[in-house]
Amino acid sequence: MMEKLILHEDARSGNCYKIRLTAALLGIPIERRNYDIMKGETRAREFLDTVNANGRIPVLQVGDRFLPESNAACWYLAEGSELIPGGRFARADMLRWMFFEQYNHEPNVATLRFWYYFIGEQNLSDAQRAQVPAKRAGGEAALALMDEHLGINAFMAGPSASLADIALYAYTHVCEAGGFRLRDRHHICAWLDRIAALPGYVAMV
Amino acid sequence: MMEKLILHEDARSGNCYKIRLTAALLGIPIERRNYDIMKGETRAREFLDTVNANGRIPVLQVGDRFLPESNAACWYLAEGSELIPGGRFARADMLRWMFFEQYNHEPNVATLRFWYYFIGEQNLSDAQRAQVPAKRAGGEAALALMDEHLGINAFMAGPSASLADIALYAYTHVCEAGGFRLRDRHHICAWLDRIAALPGYVAMV
Repeated sequence: MMEKLILHEDARSGNCYKIRLTAALLGIPIERRNYDIMKGETRAREFLDTVNANGRIPVLQVGDRFLPESNAACWYLAEGSELIPGGRFARADMLRWMFFEQYNHEPNVATLRFWYYFIGEQNLSDAQRAQVPAKRAGGEAALALMDEHLGINAFMAGPSASLADIALYAYTHVCEAGGFRLRDRHHICAWLDRIAALPGYVAMV
Repeated sequence: MMEKLILHEDARSGNCYKIRLTAALLGIPIERRNYDIMKGETRAREFLDTVNANGRIPVLQVGDRFLPESNAACWYLAEGSELIPGGRFARADMLRWMFFEQYNHEPNVATLRFWYYFIGEQNLSDAQRAQVPAKRAGGEAALALMDEHLGINAFMAGPSASLADIALYAYTHVCEAGGFRLRDRHHICAWLDRIAALPGYVAMV
């Protein structure tokens, strides 16, 4: 029996959506508390003191304990379920794609979505503008690697959907809001359809 | 019985060192193949085709399979050992710090070490120079969060050393090469000593 679960989130964040999608696919009930990151609500003193000293969402609250980092929260929910592969190598390979997501994918694909879709191009600082070309190239490289991998594998790790798919789905399926194009990434497009057809799937908004 | 393990690495990389340190603490023998990232040896066609299409080291070769991403490789080696906590929450909390390392720590602390110590300040591009202030602030924030956490916990996750400690130790203990100062981070300094005293510990070089 799991302790009471509360997701501290901003519903527009793909990182928060990962946790909702994992919980939905597993049929785990989860309460939601919303914060507006655009208003700095996760940098408020009370949030820093009680929820996450790192000032970021999502945070999964488990009873009276707090677990930041989206992919760690997904792992907590999914342990022992079919969303984590049974074999030792496949399990590590799933984590491989989850670390890839946080290092190569999210800082490029998610950040450009945030900058263009939420902040707005005209409001970007000079420092942000200077980083756009590198983030564009990094995001394209991450999407190209995924597309190549999905050309020979139905899912990112193992024979069925795992947390690696959930982690990468969250920002890939909305990447066009950041100026990326999916139309020529045929294998990614087919994979997006496979994820959206999973029993229990919920949309981001 | 584990399959034959080969670490594809550049010995100067902290990400590669994480895997060597994990293997050493667990007494797991591991073969090493060195590549010079400064000469682009991990972007060569053969490396991309056989070892890692993402063009990065480290990669842990397990028999004839290849596992990129340092923290995933550490997980593969450590499954079932005392380097991964036994409790469900503690295990997820360990992963939380490992994702934090790849998202908040490595891109700042490791990158500035690479830029200042290996590339050299006078050789930085304008684009790199423009990113230094943000990376300095991000790295200081990551170190401050660690120092605060280690003021009330002997190790990053759980009551004893885990993969979270190994992941964060790798670039923290050499962060001064990137212009960070450890002398006022007393809790980090004491923790570095605790890690270096672990049975089986090996130094980076």
